Amino acid sequence: MDPVEVHLAQVLAAVRPLAPARYGLEAAEGCVLAEDTRAALALPSFDNSAMDGYAVHAADIAAATAEDPVSLPVADEVTAGDTRQLTVEPGSCVIIMTGALMPGGADTVIPVEWTDGGRETAQFHRAAPAGNSVRRRGVDVAVGDLLLPAGTRLGPAQIALLAAGGNAHPLVRRAPVAAVIATGSELVEPGQDLAPGQIWDSNSYLIAAAVRRSGGMARRHRVPDDPVAMLGALEAQAPLCDLLITTGGVSMGGQHDVVKASLSGWDDVTFRKVAMQPGMPQGFGVIGERRTPLFALPGNPVSAFVSFHLFVRPALDALRGLTATTPVLRATLTDGVRSPSGKRSYLRGTLDLAARTVTPLNGQDSHRLGTLAHATALIIVGETVTELAAGAETDVISLP
Amino acid sequence: MDPVEVHLAQVLAAVRPLAPARYGLEAAEGCVLAEDTRAALALPSFDNSAMDGYAVHAADIAAATAEDPVSLPVADEVTAGDTRQLTVEPGSCVIIMTGALMPGGADTVIPVEWTDGGRETAQFHRAAPAGNSVRRRGVDVAVGDLLLPAGTRLGPAQIALLAAGGNAHPLVRRAPVAAVIATGSELVEPGQDLAPGQIWDSNSYLIAAAVRRSGGMARRHRVPDDPVAMLGALEAQAPLCDLLITTGGVSMGGQHDVVKASLSGWDDVTFRKVAMQPGMPQGFGVIGERRTPLFALPGNPVSAFVSFHLFVRPALDALRGLTATTPVLRATLTDGVRSPSGKRSYLRGTLDLAARTVTPLNGQDSHRLGTLAHATALIIVGETVTELAAGAETDVISLP
Repeated sequence: MDPVEVHLAQVLAAVRPLAPARYGLEAAEGCVLAEDTRAALALPSFDNSAMDGYAVHAADIAAATAEDPVSLPVADEVTAGDTRQLTVEPGSCVIIMTGALMPGGADTVIPVEWTDGGRETAQFHRAAPAGNSVRRRGVDVAVGDLLLPAGTRLGPAQIALLAAGGNAHPLVRRAPVAAVIATGSELVEPGQDLAPGQIWDSNSYLIAAAVRRSGGMARRHRVPDDPVAMLGALEAQAPLCDLLITTGGVSMGGQHDVVKASLSGWDDVTFRKVAMQPGMPQGFGVIGERRTPLFALPGNPVSAFVSFHLFVRPALDALRGLTATTPVLRATLTDGVRSPSGKRSYLRGTLDLAARTVTPLNGQDSHRLGTLAHATALIIVGETVTELAAGAETDVISLP
Repeated sequence: MDPVEVHLAQVLAAVRPLAPARYGLEAAEGCVLAEDTRAALALPSFDNSAMDGYAVHAADIAAATAEDPVSLPVADEVTAGDTRQLTVEPGSCVIIMTGALMPGGADTVIPVEWTDGGRETAQFHRAAPAGNSVRRRGVDVAVGDLLLPAGTRLGPAQIALLAAGGNAHPLVRRAPVAAVIATGSELVEPGQDLAPGQIWDSNSYLIAAAVRRSGGMARRHRVPDDPVAMLGALEAQAPLCDLLITTGGVSMGGQHDVVKASLSGWDDVTFRKVAMQPGMPQGFGVIGERRTPLFALPGNPVSAFVSFHLFVRPALDALRGLTATTPVLRATLTDGVRSPSGKRSYLRGTLDLAARTVTPLNGQDSHRLGTLAHATALIIVGETVTELAAGAETDVISLP
């Protein structure tokens, strides 16, 4: 058996980031920036007022107090979006709104709250130094500053920063497209009639949803345990997607393991036992002219799900141009757990992030979707550990 | 000024969950279950094999050892998806694959690894009690068990559990649709020509992306500082969406505050100062025949973003049928922070979840998108606290 890290290293060695392209800002949401993006414009791009008030020469109101206010005639008014290049003459003032272009001459803004709010003549009750309530050009971002580095995932604030900087078409890597192929002659579309021996397909839904949750797109397919159908599906889908994910058909036993039987002769696909539970039998390789990565995951839903998080999710990250990491936290077990010697266990549990505790769930068998649906974390128990008591600290993966 | 909780309570008192509807499983991804969903079928729905091996009567091989194996004739073979109701006669065995329907008569499965793998006659090297490697009908979920309670967000494992149970059309609440309206005559579409005094609109992108990141859908709009245009946009959009979100036009100063000027006479819309920084001026109410919730957020991008997380995100949760909570963690400050007396501060920082530390970022002014784009958390400093030193523990909101 190979350690988890050996299989993951094989995966990551074979996966290349997708080719970047320019997208509009809304289409770029959730994508990953493919180049360092520098500011073509300063932010703010012009001196502007941080308050509603009056633009003045600070020297003109240096003596102003509540008892002895200074009066200045109001020469004009400037609102946000007003593109006139006004000038404030000494001994006068201009009404100014938040975000409005600072007129020439004026060096400070007096908030309306420090005045009588006059519209012909304004009385000032307080003085202020030069620069008061003025947002200087470039104080947030100077021209040429690195706005966002390559590899940045574009969430709301990052999209907004690109918008503010006028970067309307950033160079990004799009969401990878996965073809998810559930194998098994026993599988029937959920809700359709079921004979004894048949089950409703859940794996294609599980893995497609997990792909979407991890920043990819996914299409679902289902094929029976028939090597011709299997190879046909792989050949049809490989040119249409960025990665292929099969579930089932990889166990150790048999001639009925259709994925393994179909692909085990191929040079670029490896099947191996990985020292983990669940999820021991794993296949990975590249197929077709485009050398599309292929993940052959085990068929038990929990095994497929754990395998997805350990191997496919990092590959999706790598395709997107993100650094592929599986974030691991430490948490204290509220109950004891057992684990087989020689395998790393990934047990289903519920994580209390505030208390830093994790509670193992009942029903850890790898077909138990009922348990999986209540899990918020995977509890990791190392290969050489067979038991952890309540109160022990261990590694956990928080499920997204 | 009102505390944050007072404004949030007004919001949540006015927001009702959306009407539920039945969706297909892929459309239901990310939606919230609107009713307790019980199992119509047991999981597994029939006794089946957990391994590739042989279905036998346990008594027939009770004496089997490696030195003295027991031989049984192979009567048949059953694969996953085989719907025949086979029976294993005493003194014989049936080859069985993982997931295949357990034949009648047989009470245990012997893994192929404990045999010679024979196809005419099989030699058994180990005995096993009844029930070995057999997944009993209903062991994961019994008929009538609560599969998932109302209020469950349907992620990959929950969708898969519904699929496995044949619940192809769950009753869910869909993603709320928000109309995001950025106000300001200074706003120009990113990338288009800019005169001094104009800025590229980032707020509509920021808030629309935040809505989508929080499980909603969003359309962006932009209106100038013109009450007629503003009211026209509100009246046009209110019947088409589940909530309205405006940015800008709510500050304390002015006749140019278009949102406030347009709506402050309305009975069902309240403008108030909330004791927080950034984000002090807030408006909220319901408008139109459908009593559509309206959030009037301040116009500085950071203020709008913080306001979104404190007030709009909980409302989106409530519309979806989720319990509206803003998860707060404790973390240790790596640097000191200051905060005004009488206001609760939400400072931008970077959170190290593993180390439980949070680092305040430089540039906390509410127009600084450059800082916001690097933040992964909001650091909360209470109303009565004006300073926290490095090493102090404080509440933080982890940004999604």
